[in-house]
This record gives sequence, C-alpha cells and structure tokens, in this order.
Amino acid sequence: MTIKFIAIDWGSTNFRAYRVEEGQNTDVITLPIGITQLKHPNFDQLLSDALSPWHTWIEIFQVPIILAGMIGSDRGWVDSGYQMLPQPISAIKRGCIQIKSSLSTPIYVHSGLAINTLNFTNVMRGEEVQLLGAISLTNDDCYVFPGTHSKWIEPIDGQITSFNTIMTGELYYILMQHSLLGQSVPKAVLPEGFALGLKEGTLAGSDIISKLFIARSARVLHQMPAEMVAGWLSGLLIGHEVATQLTHFKNASSFSIIAAPALAKLYQQAFQLNHIETTAIDPEQGILYGFRSIYDELYS
Amino acid sequence: MTIKFIAIDWGSTNFRAYRVEEGQNTDVITLPIGITQLKHPNFDQLLSDALSPWHTWIEIFQVPIILAGMIGSDRGWVDSGYQMLPQPISAIKRGCIQIKSSLSTPIYVHSGLAINTLNFTNVMRGEEVQLLGAISLTNDDCYVFPGTHSKWIEPIDGQITSFNTIMTGELYYILMQHSLLGQSVPKAVLPEGFALGLKEGTLAGSDIISKLFIARSARVLHQMPAEMVAGWLSGLLIGHEVATQLTHFKNASSFSIIAAPALAKLYQQAFQLNHIETTAIDPEQGILYGFRSIYDELYS
Repeated sequence: MTIKFIAIDWGSTNFRAYRVEEGQNTDVITLPIGITQLKHPNFDQLLSDALSPWHTWIEIFQVPIILAGMIGSDRGWVDSGYQMLPQPISAIKRGCIQIKSSLSTPIYVHSGLAINTLNFTNVMRGEEVQLLGAISLTNDDCYVFPGTHSKWIEPIDGQITSFNTIMTGELYYILMQHSLLGQSVPKAVLPEGFALGLKEGTLAGSDIISKLFIARSARVLHQMPAEMVAGWLSGLLIGHEVATQLTHFKNASSFSIIAAPALAKLYQQAFQLNHIETTAIDPEQGILYGFRSIYDELYS
Repeated sequence: MTIKFIAIDWGSTNFRAYRVEEGQNTDVITLPIGITQLKHPNFDQLLSDALSPWHTWIEIFQVPIILAGMIGSDRGWVDSGYQMLPQPISAIKRGCIQIKSSLSTPIYVHSGLAINTLNFTNVMRGEEVQLLGAISLTNDDCYVFPGTHSKWIEPIDGQITSFNTIMTGELYYILMQHSLLGQSVPKAVLPEGFALGLKEGTLAGSDIISKLFIARSARVLHQMPAEMVAGWLSGLLIGHEVATQLTHFKNASSFSIIAAPALAKLYQQAFQLNHIETTAIDPEQGILYGFRSIYDELYS
C-alpha cells in the first residue's frame, strides 16, 4: 500500500501541515492561525482554505488528515479528550477520534494525555505525538520538550505513568511583556545575560519568585544593563526548570531534548551546568515519526 | 510649634495625600494618578491640581509637603535615589531630597532603601516610610508588607541590614490577566479555592512554577471549577511566599503584617498554617506615623 497522509500540528500560535508521501515529508504549509490567534473561528473552513494547494492531490487519493495539538482542546475545533495515564507507549498512538468536515477525506484528531488523580492533575496535548516519534529515534531515560509549557516525561518499562509541566515559556513571555521587569528593555536574549541568569536559576531553589526581582533591582542600581535583562530572565527560568526537574527525575541518566535548535541549545547549556550531556532531537523529525506511527495504527 | 504638613504616598497605581494637623489626619485626597497610569505626566501640575482643595490652607500656613513611593523612582518626578543598607533605623527618616515646584511651599521626596552588593541587589520605595511607622507601633522581629512586590524586613539591633522582595502580587496579576491560567475565569477570590491553593503553595517548595499549571490542568479535567481558579492561584502564591520566607527569617518569632484588612487576612491565614500568630497593622496608620517621624526630623 502506498503511504500518503497529511499530518497537522495545530497549536496555540501556529498551524503547520506536512504532506507525507512514502514516509517522506514532501511539502509543508505553515500559517499563523493558531487557535488563540483567532476570533470565532470556523475551523472547517480554515482547514480547507489552508490545504487548498493540495486539494487535487487530497481528492484524487482520498488522503487522510491527522491533527494534533490545541486544535483538539476545549478551545479548539473539537475536544478530543485525553488518554488517562498510566498507558503503555504502544497505546498512545491509538488515541484518535474521527470528525466530519467539508473535505471528503477522513479526518482524525489525536487526543492528549492526562493524569487525573486526587492529588495531582496534568495535561499534555501535541507533545504526545512528538514523544512517540522521539522514543522511536532515541532510547533515553527522559524526554524533555521545552516550550510555553515545558514537558518532562520518563517512560518506564514501556509505560508512561507520569509527566511534569513547567510554565517556563509562558512565564518568561508574560514577565517580559506585561511586568515591570520587561518594561523598556530590549527583547533579544544575549548570551552573557543568559549565562549569568542560568547560574542564578540553577541555584534558586524555592527562592525563584524573589530572584525574579533582581531583574529590576540590579537594573535600577546599574548592576545590570537593560540589554542584559531578557537573557538574564530567560537563563533564570530555564536554569530553575532544569535544576528542579533533575531532582524529580533523579533516576534518569540520559536525556533527549526535543526543541528547535536555538532553544535546544539554551537547554543544553542548562544541562551542562548540571554536568549532563543530552541528545537533541529535531522536533520536526519527532513529530513526523510520531504521526507516522499514528497513521500506521489507523491503516495497517 | 504647630505641626502642619501634607504626606503623600504616590505609587504605581494610586496617589493618596493626607492633610496632617497636630499629628492627626484631618482630610484625605485619593486619585487614580499612579505613575504607571500616566503618559508624559507633568507631575508639578498634577500635584498642584490634586491639592487644589487645600491651596488656601497650604499658602496661608506654608505647609511642607512630603512625598514617598514610586514618584521618587527613575520613572517618577525626580529620582530621589536610595539609602544603601545597612543603616540604623534612626537614619532612614533622614533620606529626603528637596525639589522645586510651582507651589510656594517646601517639597521633599523620600529616598528608597537599597542593597547593592556583588552578590545581591534589592530595592524598596515607599515601604520604608510604612516601616518607620510600624516599628514605632509594634516591637516585632519581622515586618511583612504584602503587595505587588511584597517586602520582608527584619531589623536587628536597631539596624536594617537586609530585606527581601517577592513578586507575589504582580505575578498573580499578570497570570490572571495575561496567561492561559486566567482565561475565562471569574476574578473573585473565593475562600474555598484560596484555602486549597494555600495548602498547595505552603508545600510547593522549588516546584512552584510547575504547580501553577494545576490551575489549568485541574480545570480542564473538571477537578476545579472555573470560579475557584482565582482563589486557588492567590492561595498558591501567598502560601509559597510565606513558607519560603519563614525559612529565610527563621530566627524571627513575631511578625507584623502591614496591609489593608482583606489582604492582611489572607496572609494571616498563611501564617496560621505555619502555626504563627501575627500582628496586623493598618497601613494608613503605619504610613502616617512614618511620615510624622520624617517631618519631625526635618522640622524639629
């Protein structure tokens, strides 16, 4: 059978569709139509418009479309729900619901992963596809997905039992955009500021919220130039994330980082400060391998 | 000599002027003209307009005006600088600079307090006046000023050597206003949500940034109703602040809280969870006593 499908990562800020033929990504469409960017969206229409360059191909071959990410959340097209952990890794690729659209081909939305116990809740949506791909690419103890809501996942004996979410990316963004710390400072992350913040964040422990204020006080007292603030704050938060999570995932000795090269590099620097080398996985490759395993589950 | 002066707390969001006669507050003017609320402000004109109901009194008696708060910052009328710690408490009331204005009376702006060492920086502006007042009212080991940027200060042997700033209030505000956590949830702080968040925050330790995400995951998984989120988040952050600062100020056994009654009550709940009773000081009384000691230093 000839493998043809469309894999779409439709998140909070971006829409990214991959045309997959014979297991290869042969074209990409990227649009700034993430679900938080839209008011009263007609997702069916948006999808049809976005994929218009591929319409003929879709119709001739009746190509299935698989969606993942925030599009399947309570704020997206349809709430595809969550698979409740623990789950064997092999089960995660099964969590798809089929939905109807004006396109004539089958459309699937992958569900997220959730922990829902009396003492702890957590949710993930989109990263589970990258996780499927990453696990097929490396055999590390722990998989780290830096981002708006960073995820840390440690599969144990072929099972996903838990994961953690750290709001590093969103916190950095809102502090830079909306707090006193980010007022009148350049937005570029300079390596020197990052390195200093990283040290402070690695040592911050439970003091992290008081340490944040150094981005203000050191600047007012002329110990930190305005152009260093963004880097320092980024380093502080990433350093804190990595140091605290390493204490949680203390049985893990090998780590994969799934992130775009620039961000992966910042996290690798944080790991190095903790004397740990890491494997970097290209997130696009991770997501394509993940979607491929979902496709295989649906069609083989 | 007859004591007459005007004390003004001019902060980020509010302007509050007290008419003081014979040591008593005989009138108050409150306006929403905090320094972050204004674009290209003419502070001289703003002050003159704000005090217009008292103009005759000011001119007849040539009443001095003492200002404190963010009005003396690099973003205010004039940068009144900082007194560098350590300082004896008795020195703090001296930190005033005189400025010129279109009003014919003497105008003073109080300077803040700062720590500026190689390893640590911190700044305070406005709370130092309340501190002067609070110290004259109670004899506790540690003084806590909850707020946008909470301050904890432990005077030792008549000296102020250090203090800490925790961004609890600002973090709560920007999370509720600008992050995924606060989207589509009511803004009222419900006691039940607060109590649950307080417990979580008291135990959070260095996990505080990952705990924040529970405000999202528990809601998505229907474990936390939308109307509980604001209270839960407030409790989480206040619980975390109090628990972490108590480990820093571990030699202190008595605490004063200087805050408006509603906020003071939330902090007292956090202290109680740590088995500590506190003294609540009315911030208006604190600030008036503080301004009074500055006035005495200037005019006696």
